[in-house]
Amino acid sequence: MIENPYYTPEAQGHYELANIGDLRLEEGGTIRGCRLGYATFGTLNADKSNAILVPTWYSGTHRIMADVYIGKQHALNPERYFIVVVNQLGNGISSSPHNTPFPGGMASFPRVRIGDDVQAQHRLLTERLGVDRLELVVGGSMGAQQTYEWAVRYPDMVRRAAPIAGTAKNSVHDFLFTETLIEAITSDPGYKGGWYSAASDVREGLFRHAKIWALMGWSPAFFSRQRFRALGFSSLDDFLTNFMKAYFGVMDPNDLLCMAWKWQRGDVSRLTGGDLEQALGRIRAKTFVMPIESDMFFPPSDCEHEQKLIPNSELRLIHTVDGHLGLFATDPEYMGQVDRHLRELLATPV
Amino acid sequence: MIENPYYTPEAQGHYELANIGDLRLEEGGTIRGCRLGYATFGTLNADKSNAILVPTWYSGTHRIMADVYIGKQHALNPERYFIVVVNQLGNGISSSPHNTPFPGGMASFPRVRIGDDVQAQHRLLTERLGVDRLELVVGGSMGAQQTYEWAVRYPDMVRRAAPIAGTAKNSVHDFLFTETLIEAITSDPGYKGGWYSAASDVREGLFRHAKIWALMGWSPAFFSRQRFRALGFSSLDDFLTNFMKAYFGVMDPNDLLCMAWKWQRGDVSRLTGGDLEQALGRIRAKTFVMPIESDMFFPPSDCEHEQKLIPNSELRLIHTVDGHLGLFATDPEYMGQVDRHLRELLATPV
Repeated sequence: MIENPYYTPEAQGHYELANIGDLRLEEGGTIRGCRLGYATFGTLNADKSNAILVPTWYSGTHRIMADVYIGKQHALNPERYFIVVVNQLGNGISSSPHNTPFPGGMASFPRVRIGDDVQAQHRLLTERLGVDRLELVVGGSMGAQQTYEWAVRYPDMVRRAAPIAGTAKNSVHDFLFTETLIEAITSDPGYKGGWYSAASDVREGLFRHAKIWALMGWSPAFFSRQRFRALGFSSLDDFLTNFMKAYFGVMDPNDLLCMAWKWQRGDVSRLTGGDLEQALGRIRAKTFVMPIESDMFFPPSDCEHEQKLIPNSELRLIHTVDGHLGLFATDPEYMGQVDRHLRELLATPV
Repeated sequence: MIENPYYTPEAQGHYELANIGDLRLEEGGTIRGCRLGYATFGTLNADKSNAILVPTWYSGTHRIMADVYIGKQHALNPERYFIVVVNQLGNGISSSPHNTPFPGGMASFPRVRIGDDVQAQHRLLTERLGVDRLELVVGGSMGAQQTYEWAVRYPDMVRRAAPIAGTAKNSVHDFLFTETLIEAITSDPGYKGGWYSAASDVREGLFRHAKIWALMGWSPAFFSRQRFRALGFSSLDDFLTNFMKAYFGVMDPNDLLCMAWKWQRGDVSRLTGGDLEQALGRIRAKTFVMPIESDMFFPPSDCEHEQKLIPNSELRLIHTVDGHLGLFATDPEYMGQVDRHLRELLATPV
C-alpha cells in the first residue's frame, strides 16, 4: 500500500465504501474483500423506478461526475432520480493496486476487465442498494465501455443507455494509443516493475503520460484555436504543466496501468464468442450513442458502426473541438448538448 | 561519430556528397565542412529550365523519393526534368550528429532550422549545379516545410510549389506530437544525454518512438479497416515489429532528434517578424497545397488556412485513410492523385 492524498475524501469529496466480498475475476485472479467506492445523489423512490447508474472513466472518480454532470439543472437531476456513481476498480477509490495490502497490491494486483466492474456493480446495486432496474446507465469513455457491458450483460435490467465517447469493442488504434500511455509510465526506471516506494519516483513517466494525453485527448483544432487560453492558461507550457501534469502527476502509476490494461480490452463480444453483432443485438435498452465529433481515438465513425448494430438506438453527435477530453465540459456548449440528449432519452417511454 | 550501416550507399542507393563549406546556422552554431548528400535524376537542359527540387522528410532519405515519386511513369519524370533530391541536414546522409567528428557531433551537433536547410540547398544548386530557377519544389511533411521556406525566401527562383502534408508554420498540436517523439527517445537511460556508444543502446526509446509514430502516423480508419493486413502484416504486433520498429529502430537517435527539433520550429513567418500573412503573401510560385485528408497532425483545415493566404494557390486534397504516412504511397490510389496534381501544376504556365 502507498499513501496518496489524491484518493482521500478530502480531495475527492464524500463517498461510501462497500465491501462486496471476494471478487473472482475473468482473468483468473481474485480481489479479496473487494471494496467499491460510490456516491449517491437523490433518493430511491418507493417502486424503485428512478435509479440511474453512472460508471467512471479512466483516471476519473465520482467527483467529476458529481461536479459536472449531476445537479438539479442537469438531466441527471437528484431531485428526480436516485443516481449512483460507482468508481471503477483500479481508479484509486475502489479496490486498486495502491490501496490493496501486501502481497495483493502494487504490481501484484490482478488483471481486471470491464466485465468484472459490471459484476461488482451489479452486486452492489442488487444486494446493497435494492436496485434491480436501471432507468439509465450513462458514462463517458471507459464509463461508456461499462455502459455497453451493462446493456449487453443485463438487457432486462437496463432500460436506457447512453455511452458517451466510447465503444463497445475497443479498436486497434485505441489499443495502440493506450499502449503508448502504458509505456510512458513503465519505461521510467523509477517504476521498478511496479514496486516503487512513492508515486513521485515515477514522476517523469507520469509527466510523459500526461503529455501524450494532451496530444490525443484534445484535438488539433483545440490547439489551433488556442482553446487552452480560454481555459485560463497563458501558453502551451503553462497548460501542459498546470493542467495536464497537475491532473495526472498526482495519481498512482499502478492504478493508471490497471485501468489502462482494462480499457485496452473492453469488448462486449466476449459474451458472444467474438460476435459483436450478436452481442449488440442483445441490447434491449433504448440507446443514444453519443460520440464527440473531434475525438481522436473514439472517432464518430467507430461509434456509428456500433450504433447501427443496436436495435433501438440513435446516434447523437456532440459538437465541440475539445476532442475526447471535452468530457470534462471544458466547452461551455458541451453540457447543454449532453443534457438535451439525456432528457430526451429519459423522456422516451420504454 | 558512430558507424551505422543504415546510412550507407549499400542501404540507401547511390548519392553524391558535396562539401559546401562552413554553414553558419540561424541559431548561432556552425557546421564545419557541411556536406549535403543528394541524388540527381535526368539532365539539366541547355537553358536550365527543367530543374525540380525535392527536399526530404523526417527520417527519410533521397531513396524513398527516388523509389516512389520519381520515374518516367510519374509527374517527376527524369526524361523530361532534372530532378535534385537533397537530403535534409541531420537525416544521416547529409551532415548529421552521427556522422560529424568529435567534438561537433552527437549531442554537440548544433541546432538546425528549416531555413538553414534551404540556405544550404541554395548554395548547392546555384554554386555547384548551375541551377538558378526551379520549375517546381515539391516535398512531403518536413519536405513541405522546406518547400514553403523556399517559396517565401526565394520567390523569384521558385516558379511552382507543391507542399504535401505539411505546413508553413508549425502548429502547437504538431509541436506537441513531436515533443512526445523526442521524449520517447531521450527518456531511455541508454541515451545518456546523447553520448551513447551505439544506437542499439537506445533501442527501447527508438521502439517507443516507432509506436507513437504508429499511433499518429496512420489514422483510426487505417486500423479499423485493417489496412496493415493489406500491406502484408498478419496482426498489429507483426505490423508494429516488422514495419514500424524495423523502419525506425535502425536509425540514429541524435539524427532523429536533430530533425525533430527542426520540425517543431518550421515557420516561414520568422522571415517577416512573425507575420504569417505577410510571409505567405510573398510567394510568387503557383502553389498547390496538398494535405492528406486523414492526416492526424497536419490536418487539412490547418493547410487550408495557410493556402488561403497564398496569392496564386489552390487546395488539392489527397484522399486516403492512410493518414500522414500515406506519403509512403501505401495506398495504391495515392500516387495517381499526386501525379495528377503535379502534372497539372507543371503544365500551368507561370
